[in-house]
Amino acid sequence: MSCDIGLYGLAVMGQNFALNMASHGFTVAVCNRSPSKVDTTVQRAKDEGDLPLIGTKSPEEFISKLSKPRKVVILVQAGKPVDLTIEAISEFMEEGDVIIDGGNEWFPNQIRRHEELEKKGIMFIGMGISGGEEGARNGPSLMPGGPRKAYDLIEPIIMKCAAKAGDPEEPCTGYCGPIGAGNYVKMVHNGIEYGDMQLIGEVYDILKNIVGMGNDEMATLFEDWNSGDLESYLIEITAKILARKDDLTDDGYVVDKILDKTGMKGTGRWTVQEAAEQSVAAPLIAASLDSRYISGRKEERVAASKVLQGPSNEMPQVDKDQILSDLQQALYCAKVTSYAQGMGIIQAASDKNEWDVDLSLCAKMWRGGCIIRASLLSKITAAFEKNKDLQNLLVDETFAEEINARQMAWRRVVSLGVASGIATPALSAALSYFDQYRRDRLPANLIQAQRDFFGGHTYNRVDRDGTFHCLWDETHKDIGDLTGRTAGEL
Amino acid sequence: MSCDIGLYGLAVMGQNFALNMASHGFTVAVCNRSPSKVDTTVQRAKDEGDLPLIGTKSPEEFISKLSKPRKVVILVQAGKPVDLTIEAISEFMEEGDVIIDGGNEWFPNQIRRHEELEKKGIMFIGMGISGGEEGARNGPSLMPGGPRKAYDLIEPIIMKCAAKAGDPEEPCTGYCGPIGAGNYVKMVHNGIEYGDMQLIGEVYDILKNIVGMGNDEMATLFEDWNSGDLESYLIEITAKILARKDDLTDDGYVVDKILDKTGMKGTGRWTVQEAAEQSVAAPLIAASLDSRYISGRKEERVAASKVLQGPSNEMPQVDKDQILSDLQQALYCAKVTSYAQGMGIIQAASDKNEWDVDLSLCAKMWRGGCIIRASLLSKITAAFEKNKDLQNLLVDETFAEEINARQMAWRRVVSLGVASGIATPALSAALSYFDQYRRDRLPANLIQAQRDFFGGHTYNRVDRDGTFHCLWDETHKDIGDLTGRTAGEL
Repeated sequence: MSCDIGLYGLAVMGQNFALNMASHGFTVAVCNRSPSKVDTTVQRAKDEGDLPLIGTKSPEEFISKLSKPRKVVILVQAGKPVDLTIEAISEFMEEGDVIIDGGNEWFPNQIRRHEELEKKGIMFIGMGISGGEEGARNGPSLMPGGPRKAYDLIEPIIMKCAAKAGDPEEPCTGYCGPIGAGNYVKMVHNGIEYGDMQLIGEVYDILKNIVGMGNDEMATLFEDWNSGDLESYLIEITAKILARKDDLTDDGYVVDKILDKTGMKGTGRWTVQEAAEQSVAAPLIAASLDSRYISGRKEERVAASKVLQGPSNEMPQVDKDQILSDLQQALYCAKVTSYAQGMGIIQAASDKNEWDVDLSLCAKMWRGGCIIRASLLSKITAAFEKNKDLQNLLVDETFAEEINARQMAWRRVVSLGVASGIATPALSAALSYFDQYRRDRLPANLIQAQRDFFGGHTYNRVDRDGTFHCLWDETHKDIGDLTGRTAGEL
Repeated sequence: MSCDIGLYGLAVMGQNFALNMASHGFTVAVCNRSPSKVDTTVQRAKDEGDLPLIGTKSPEEFISKLSKPRKVVILVQAGKPVDLTIEAISEFMEEGDVIIDGGNEWFPNQIRRHEELEKKGIMFIGMGISGGEEGARNGPSLMPGGPRKAYDLIEPIIMKCAAKAGDPEEPCTGYCGPIGAGNYVKMVHNGIEYGDMQLIGEVYDILKNIVGMGNDEMATLFEDWNSGDLESYLIEITAKILARKDDLTDDGYVVDKILDKTGMKGTGRWTVQEAAEQSVAAPLIAASLDSRYISGRKEERVAASKVLQGPSNEMPQVDKDQILSDLQQALYCAKVTSYAQGMGIIQAASDKNEWDVDLSLCAKMWRGGCIIRASLLSKITAAFEKNKDLQNLLVDETFAEEINARQMAWRRVVSLGVASGIATPALSAALSYFDQYRRDRLPANLIQAQRDFFGGHTYNRVDRDGTFHCLWDETHKDIGDLTGRTAGEL
């Protein structure tokens, strides 16, 4: 049997994605470093309806089963294991074949691998996959980047295996751009995911600690929100989480028993570092990352809670209907701002690397299969389809109108948090961003003046062109001809 | 003549630092790629009191003038020029000699240079220098990191040349740690500098646009603040900047003519990226960097200002005395929080790299000569001297008391900004950090629950040890033995 595609790496994700492909009628060869998982996968293929999948026990056998040009998906741990796998399988591959790495990989590593494989004529695709184990089996969001020619070879397969979303239904995948672009888009997806989760966490904190709602009541609220503007996977599972009783103790709810430390795997960190690298402000995503870091310092927090005080006044009295409505609106505004920031990061990297990433495609791919799937993404898709050169999602006419109408609610929520001592770092950071981005004049003039004062960094003016330096006081001397010098970057 | 020390690189910084050393009685040999600046420097040494300084015209001649073990300070542009200079001069140097690079260098580059030079037995020091051109001449803050033995050789010189501060006066320098540590400390110094500047910018924005104060009135206020808790170089120059009339037009103030775009050179970006790398939350410094990025998008902001609306209500009526007092207190609280974040970054890097950086020394070195010099730094020095293992500056008894007493003012300022649509990203981010850090229980439990729900990332519990996974709904399956697995990092 000559297989349509191969899959190497049979942890649950790999097994599921292999079965996904097989269940769409593609014949799949699978392989794994430890062969026992090959047997498991073959058995699962049999159990799940005699799917066209064959197991192999060595890289050589694995590759020999594939029809040419060969296409191999790798799903092993990011980093070194990917390099070792590529080394092991590429030995038996030849010019025109394609390797697709599905890991959450730091994008420069993919560019390096591409360059190495290019020498042998093997094409390499870095494909971000979102949707977890369940998505891998039933339809993930797939974000491939690599040579167009290689993409064309796998397109028929991934279009079938990806999640479908929209009306009419479309596959949640597409060509992201050259090598690196797919992993970049996936990285930012994860950064946005950090933001969405933190926003929900902040709303939960207010509901619980200011409004005083119980878990079931909150669950109902999130369920309710999930049938409106906020409809999304994360809101949906939040409702389920809040309602879930604790099996272990048969007493109360799981969520109350969970330690308040959030783990992480690195893509949020990368997103924040990349935003800085690309000179893009993404404070909401950064606030989400920082919140995880602070959550991790549980012991320090417990100690600090005994020393540092909150507001001296009592919790403010709130009108419950008002605050619930405000929270819903604030969450919506902040979410849009978060996507504006995330899209800004992708756009900047795309410009710098000449990837030509289509932002409307990104939003489209995220509508299904992935963790951040949300009805909002259809609107975002439309915004970028309407205007490919949209400089910021916030100034899209539809979103601008919506946020203008809801901003007062957003302000009330942030103020409430400030007055109550319940931190809303992401909601606040997003509001600050909004209030900075919509100002034609910021206090940056004073800061530039300071830079010119202490470092002779020069400045530009509002009333004429050119670069200037002020002799602020008697300590300042002429710093010479400024022609051709750029203010501020000196 | 056999010189005590050499200085290569005679831009104004280099000239000034050479003259500084010479004016303390050290004989200095100077050299530069283009020889005209050598003549300028020699002339200045003559003009400034026949200082013991000699000019040389080639690396070979330069090195030949130095007594052994030779000590050479490099002050050229960071990056490639440093490597080229090291290459040019090290050829004539020998085992036991010392090269000191005074540039704002990305610390891993210094580690690389150290490793290269170590092979030749030449010792390498990366020394952060702050204070600009004026500081270089009259006393900068000097932050050296490198082999202890090399440090001991230059200590007598740098102790004399550094700024003095404190009572009794002490030099603003000291041994930061192994190679990289000095540049790291300087990098974070710059990150804190970004924060201090942004905070002042936000206060200025409120004074101008909410309180409605004019430049002279604001100048007087900052002058007044400069004789209290906020006493610092940046507050001092802000007063001067605000009062400065515009020479170019003879109409109004310079500050109003300056374009609201803040430039940057990279150390703020590095600080933010490093904070993320070290898993340290530094949202105030990040907000300062983001504010510079947003300021740079002037054209986008002008366009957005026509589409996005601010608060619908009028500017809130404020009691002027109250708001001025609140601003002073808020600025103080946020500044302390900023230093807490900066010190946290250094501590984390020091732990990771086994640098053993003394945080009290950092604060001590920053008391004079550098841009962030402030009376606050004496208190910070004291806090870390009292407790070397202080986990966070905020929980130091003195600071905790001060902030507890002032937090309501801080909250009022942030709320005022939120209600008025005048963004206070740094003041807000610092307050969020404070309110998160002092909470023994954060909503991070919900976020970890989400991670366990969609990714099987497991969780820890508050009521028992171990790692757990919840079968949240019918889609979840047992994920096997969790013994030895760490929740959240999977």
